[in-house]
Amino acid sequence: VLRLGQGTRDHPPAQAALRDRLLTAVVSCFKRHGAAAIDTPVLELRETLMGKYGQEAKLIYELQDQGGELLALRYDLTVPFARYLAMNKITNMKRYHVAKVYRRDNPATSRGRYREFYQCDFDIAGHFDPMIPDAECLKIVHEILSDLQLGDFLIKVNDRRILNGVFAACGIPESKFITTCSTVDKLDKIPWEEVKNEMVGEKGLSPEAADCIGEYVQLHGGLDLIERLLQDPKLSQNKLAKEGLGDMKLLFEYLTLFGITGKISFDLSLARGLDYYTGVIFEAVLLQQENNHVEESVSVGSVAGGGRYDGLVGMFDPKGRKVPCVGFSIGIERIFSILEQRVKASGEKLRATETEVLVATPQKHFLAPRLKLISELWDARIKAEMFYKKDPKLLKQLQYCEDAGIPLVAIIGEQELTDGVVKLRDVATREEVRM
Amino acid sequence: VLRLGQGTRDHPPAQAALRDRLLTAVVSCFKRHGAAAIDTPVLELRETLMGKYGQEAKLIYELQDQGGELLALRYDLTVPFARYLAMNKITNMKRYHVAKVYRRDNPATSRGRYREFYQCDFDIAGHFDPMIPDAECLKIVHEILSDLQLGDFLIKVNDRRILNGVFAACGIPESKFITTCSTVDKLDKIPWEEVKNEMVGEKGLSPEAADCIGEYVQLHGGLDLIERLLQDPKLSQNKLAKEGLGDMKLLFEYLTLFGITGKISFDLSLARGLDYYTGVIFEAVLLQQENNHVEESVSVGSVAGGGRYDGLVGMFDPKGRKVPCVGFSIGIERIFSILEQRVKASGEKLRATETEVLVATPQKHFLAPRLKLISELWDARIKAEMFYKKDPKLLKQLQYCEDAGIPLVAIIGEQELTDGVVKLRDVATREEVRM
Repeated sequence: VLRLGQGTRDHPPAQAALRDRLLTAVVSCFKRHGAAAIDTPVLELRETLMGKYGQEAKLIYELQDQGGELLALRYDLTVPFARYLAMNKITNMKRYHVAKVYRRDNPATSRGRYREFYQCDFDIAGHFDPMIPDAECLKIVHEILSDLQLGDFLIKVNDRRILNGVFAACGIPESKFITTCSTVDKLDKIPWEEVKNEMVGEKGLSPEAADCIGEYVQLHGGLDLIERLLQDPKLSQNKLAKEGLGDMKLLFEYLTLFGITGKISFDLSLARGLDYYTGVIFEAVLLQQENNHVEESVSVGSVAGGGRYDGLVGMFDPKGRKVPCVGFSIGIERIFSILEQRVKASGEKLRATETEVLVATPQKHFLAPRLKLISELWDARIKAEMFYKKDPKLLKQLQYCEDAGIPLVAIIGEQELTDGVVKLRDVATREEVRM
Repeated sequence: VLRLGQGTRDHPPAQAALRDRLLTAVVSCFKRHGAAAIDTPVLELRETLMGKYGQEAKLIYELQDQGGELLALRYDLTVPFARYLAMNKITNMKRYHVAKVYRRDNPATSRGRYREFYQCDFDIAGHFDPMIPDAECLKIVHEILSDLQLGDFLIKVNDRRILNGVFAACGIPESKFITTCSTVDKLDKIPWEEVKNEMVGEKGLSPEAADCIGEYVQLHGGLDLIERLLQDPKLSQNKLAKEGLGDMKLLFEYLTLFGITGKISFDLSLARGLDYYTGVIFEAVLLQQENNHVEESVSVGSVAGGGRYDGLVGMFDPKGRKVPCVGFSIGIERIFSILEQRVKASGEKLRATETEVLVATPQKHFLAPRLKLISELWDARIKAEMFYKKDPKLLKQLQYCEDAGIPLVAIIGEQELTDGVVKLRDVATREEVRM
């Protein structure tokens, strides 16, 4: 049986055309914000990827040792970007990168989860005044999700420093911050009671500590919540939390200037999976509207996520010199699934080609004139096709135009050849003109 | 030391922009000819690739067995295309595919040979009247090389059936056709004497047989040569050679209608490396002009190559049903190297971004107005950047525009804010207007 590797797929023409349309929209937004494109190899040295993903490292595809060096397939575009910056000693860059990444995860192809999939990343690297690049990242996510008209969405924002401050304030030892963080991360999928059970049962926190965390991580709101937490007796004594909350306030001021706070929620349950985040983290979810009330909407999953990772480049630099970075990844596969369903539902027929005219003939022995004519069209930069048959039937040629959505037919027969003209037929209206 | 895998490379922004320009030109030609895009996985099952490349199979990257299935990285885009056709029972398709492929070859990065590199493939699959799609492939290669203005070029054409006919006519047993073919393939790099030595010494042909082959494979020409060979006493008795020569004649008739025979040479030394070709084969080389005489030009290497492979899809079909195919690959990496050198030589400064305007300020404490203004620009779909500093120096902002090639600066200061205007400055002319 002929088959593909698990969790991989082909994109037939209609899908490839839709994907192209989607990626063009995303990339044009990245360009609007002054980002440059870079490209890095799919193959990285194994040591480049190791120690950057925590638990997730087990999902990395490794290549066989065929003599030479140990290689692996990139797991994301962020670590290769950090490697690129460190290797080239770049301390200031705004770049985007659209490319495939590889994860030996359990594929759930119906929900758009694959082992080989596209990521669309945008990142800003450099030492800048606080929260200005971070705010731009959120603005871009907002623009892209609005442009794509995916329906209502919400961007949840939090800060790793605030989370760590909460953990410290609740008496959790620093050694358990990361593992506690990954339990909190499950709050969008399972209820608090289960999260608490995991904290106490598996992670060994005391029930009191877990309850203390629970009081915080179930909070969400806007500037008012930030102000309240800045006054919170426990948090206000924690340096990290204070710093994070101060920056969060600044971020909201900038987002207000951008006019986008309506779709931003400061949400203390947001934790994000990856180890390398050090500051602001965020995630955009689509909301399924019921009765048009946001309160009653249901999240249908994350379509973008990112955050600040100020330590990653330093891990690659021999002297540990840090380059602060903030960025995000657009969940293009999930968005693609949504758009695909929408196209299917609407009955819209996506053209896979851009052909403008079919060169056709109603007569036998007209291959040579057709070849001459189509050659002239191509040389005039006109998108043209013809049948690869010596004597095709006119009806079949016209039928093909209807099926493929080709708008025009250039017909050449005995009479046209004699008169030195071509009959141009509009496929939709069936109108014909000689020219 | 931080480094990349051997034979792989990053594309920094200026390179990525140039590559994008190049690929856009190639793809627009593919679209002009009515091709649809498809995408296939980089990861294929190892068994899909095995037995398709002959000797070359040793260059395939294999993945580690991490539990599950045995995977490999694609070696080209042709075998995955054939797999795609067979798997989806598609018998008729014109597609292009631009993507990376992987070969554990000896990298020669200065000559544009990498282990990870882009291929741009165009193929036509289906049962059609002879040589019509083949002629279109040559037309497309001709168009692309003309469009890119790479200087003079020549497309060498041959046919595997003619080569096999020559071998048979010279008394070579069929079992030695492929190995003899790969020796003939070296004629563009080493002189006939050395090729003959290899035939006799390594491949075990008799000196007479080798001389007989030598008489044919050193021939090249046009329609006249085809006619002569059709009358050749030895070749005209060989069924395969007669078929190949007949089709070659037809091909030249079509190419004459396309008006491109001036750059096409029927060249019996052309053999092409890969096993899967069954009919027409071709290769485009750039000519280094000396004194503007084609006779004195020197080949600087192949920039496109392809041919007909009528048996490959059948290798994947459980019932062995054949789908005839013809196609080619544009040697985009070599062309890219040439364009890169040309850009360097011309001193042209390639912009890595498309930013139209920088939002700047000459005054302190103007972050908020800048954020408001840039947000309006973005929402109006204008490509805009600003400094991520609270109080940047105006001179630095202007300098950045000159360096990055940003044509306009939108300046906002006390006076502008009061008057409700923006000062728009043309970076090149230094003209300013208030608006």
